[in-house]
Amino acid sequence: MSSTNPQILKGFRDFLPKEMAIRQKVIATLKEVFESYGFEPLETPSLEYAETLLGKNGDEADRLVYTFKDQGDRMVGLRYDLTVPVSRVLAMYNAQIPLPFKRYQIQQVWRAEKPQKGRYREVCQCDIDTFGSLSPLADAEIIAVIVDALKALKFRDFTVRINSRKVLFGLMEQLGITDKTKQLSYIQSIDKLDKKSKDEVEKELGEKELPVDEIGRLFTLIESARPDENLAQMIEFLEKLGVSSNYYKFDPILSRGLDYYTGPIFETYVGQPKIGSITGGGRYDNLVKTLGGPDISATGTTLGLDRICDVISEQNLWPDVSPTSTRVLVTVFDRQLLNRSIEIVKQLKSALIPCEIYLEPGAKLDKQLKYADKKGIPFVAIIGPEEADKGFITLKNLATKEQKTVSASDLSKTLLSW
Amino acid sequence: MSSTNPQILKGFRDFLPKEMAIRQKVIATLKEVFESYGFEPLETPSLEYAETLLGKNGDEADRLVYTFKDQGDRMVGLRYDLTVPVSRVLAMYNAQIPLPFKRYQIQQVWRAEKPQKGRYREVCQCDIDTFGSLSPLADAEIIAVIVDALKALKFRDFTVRINSRKVLFGLMEQLGITDKTKQLSYIQSIDKLDKKSKDEVEKELGEKELPVDEIGRLFTLIESARPDENLAQMIEFLEKLGVSSNYYKFDPILSRGLDYYTGPIFETYVGQPKIGSITGGGRYDNLVKTLGGPDISATGTTLGLDRICDVISEQNLWPDVSPTSTRVLVTVFDRQLLNRSIEIVKQLKSALIPCEIYLEPGAKLDKQLKYADKKGIPFVAIIGPEEADKGFITLKNLATKEQKTVSASDLSKTLLSW
Repeated sequence: MSSTNPQILKGFRDFLPKEMAIRQKVIATLKEVFESYGFEPLETPSLEYAETLLGKNGDEADRLVYTFKDQGDRMVGLRYDLTVPVSRVLAMYNAQIPLPFKRYQIQQVWRAEKPQKGRYREVCQCDIDTFGSLSPLADAEIIAVIVDALKALKFRDFTVRINSRKVLFGLMEQLGITDKTKQLSYIQSIDKLDKKSKDEVEKELGEKELPVDEIGRLFTLIESARPDENLAQMIEFLEKLGVSSNYYKFDPILSRGLDYYTGPIFETYVGQPKIGSITGGGRYDNLVKTLGGPDISATGTTLGLDRICDVISEQNLWPDVSPTSTRVLVTVFDRQLLNRSIEIVKQLKSALIPCEIYLEPGAKLDKQLKYADKKGIPFVAIIGPEEADKGFITLKNLATKEQKTVSASDLSKTLLSW
Repeated sequence: MSSTNPQILKGFRDFLPKEMAIRQKVIATLKEVFESYGFEPLETPSLEYAETLLGKNGDEADRLVYTFKDQGDRMVGLRYDLTVPVSRVLAMYNAQIPLPFKRYQIQQVWRAEKPQKGRYREVCQCDIDTFGSLSPLADAEIIAVIVDALKALKFRDFTVRINSRKVLFGLMEQLGITDKTKQLSYIQSIDKLDKKSKDEVEKELGEKELPVDEIGRLFTLIESARPDENLAQMIEFLEKLGVSSNYYKFDPILSRGLDYYTGPIFETYVGQPKIGSITGGGRYDNLVKTLGGPDISATGTTLGLDRICDVISEQNLWPDVSPTSTRVLVTVFDRQLLNRSIEIVKQLKSALIPCEIYLEPGAKLDKQLKYADKKGIPFVAIIGPEEADKGFITLKNLATKEQKTVSASDLSKTLLSW
């Protein structure tokens, strides 16, 4: 029963209050932006039938899904993303969900990845998706939300890379490559152009048996690639919606790894630090049907909470976020005076001033002041025998070391104005 | 790849926007109360080493833990509660956590229970715990938070049942029962007195080979049981903190199932509906040490989000909570006038009025009005050819069916004052 070496699993993390304060503020900011566009909240279970999860994201993804047999001998899995589960919801409950349906979902997903910088085994995804609209206006709106959300988070240096699966398939067909498996395989190599050198990608394509002159033609085609009509419309809507073109660019090498995309795709990168995409999404018009539902089109994106928080912490974007909202620590002078401290707490609470009482009535005053300082509580209230006698409280500002002695009736007023 | 019958696992639930709105409001309310007492947020991973989770809550609980081998052949498990993981955190990071440490944690837990009313396989627990204080003031504060939180949620008819493990062990010792296993086994039977008849419990104790006259003495002892000194102090602190005695009562039959409790224990029940406890907690001074950490005392409680939401929905406590914050749907008359509608949306957004554009530009106006109505959006803006020509917008109040035609420059003002 006793373990002598408490451990956490590799790739998983505990979030202590300081980190949590930032995570919660990011989530609150995203929710506000999502809701301002009419997206509504939804949640799905962590566990799904393995059959629901597998075969949607490609073989490589399937190997990363945590699957197991439950107590009832069912093959189950921890969700790999939020896109497949919400599509299952649309497949099951479409009769009671009016279309277009815009939902946001902020939940954990699990992937048995090799742990490394920016890659964790449990991450929180913040997804928005619109179901039941084929209009490129719906895709443009998703990108508008991404830009608004990142601006609200105080991000300045970011770019949404935009492409369409149709542009990529078009390139392949111009080259005379019609086999779907080959198309996807070459597209995967092209996608690596932002991480690897042109030489390396050429070599990889050669290993995939694309002839040298075809590789040359492919690169020429990529350089001259233009948005197809649908993507051009989407970009027009972006302009109309007032999204500054500083924040997005057409990028014909973007392909995204996931199998289910059918149209526009988009990923966001920040200038610093180099941690891969912080958002990823696109149009996936067949997934609800694949999951046994009716033919419902869909487009959406994930915003990755964990990488967003990594950027905020590495760039020190939010230096002042604190986990404590306590304004004053009411210290306890000794056990005899404990009741007086409790009375002060009651008084502060009824004035709605966030306060705490020190919970170890025997502790030295100095220890109590250190506690307040470490927690970032700005004020302490001290009620010693003299103060108790005279109905006074000594208030100390921990930042300036200033002290004031006030009557109990002036306490709240002093705290609110100091 | 294709499944024809999309399914969700038994005991798991999807939360559509209406339910989510209530869940989110409960969480926001609880967070506010927790933070007003100085509790700070913390989160732990969903997966832990199975060894960490097992052997802490008793054999019956262990059978309900979802455990499996991960891709790296480690035995892992989905957390069964938040108490064991946070105690592991204290065991690992105690050097960097100043004591007393007060944290809240709002996360899912998983239990392979037999699904039934009020019992789900995935539930959200909202926990508060104080580490590093032996004072009954810390226990009293936990109960004060419970009472404040439930009052903030508009609960009126609830009782926190209070007892102490020490009272129960004391009864056993008065009977001359010193064997720990027997003590726990008899206590478990006594705990059933609130669900089963006295006869049934007597029978069960008989089957556990407690002689008839001892059973009689046990019941006499229970009837005359009184709080021990520590519990009496805790109750005194409750009074001092201003917690009305309408909301709690000493109950010597309360025992709680979990093995790790060492002192005061408490559970909350509502009058209606009958769904078991909505909070459960107590003092557990040995758990951090059991997990390999130093000797850190602890007390806390869980508030069960799912049962709390069940009460709110069955009692219809929050009839007006809605998932949509959109104030106006900007309809799209036809594709030619789409740009005008987009302009209106931009204007409303810059005035910070939550609005949505209808995302299927080809749809009939009637369909768009129905969409707004179903989503609970109070107003629609209509921009037809005449309106566009004259720079007007027709605003319709969907509840009263009233219409007003306003100039673009008066739109925001009208919406804010209507």
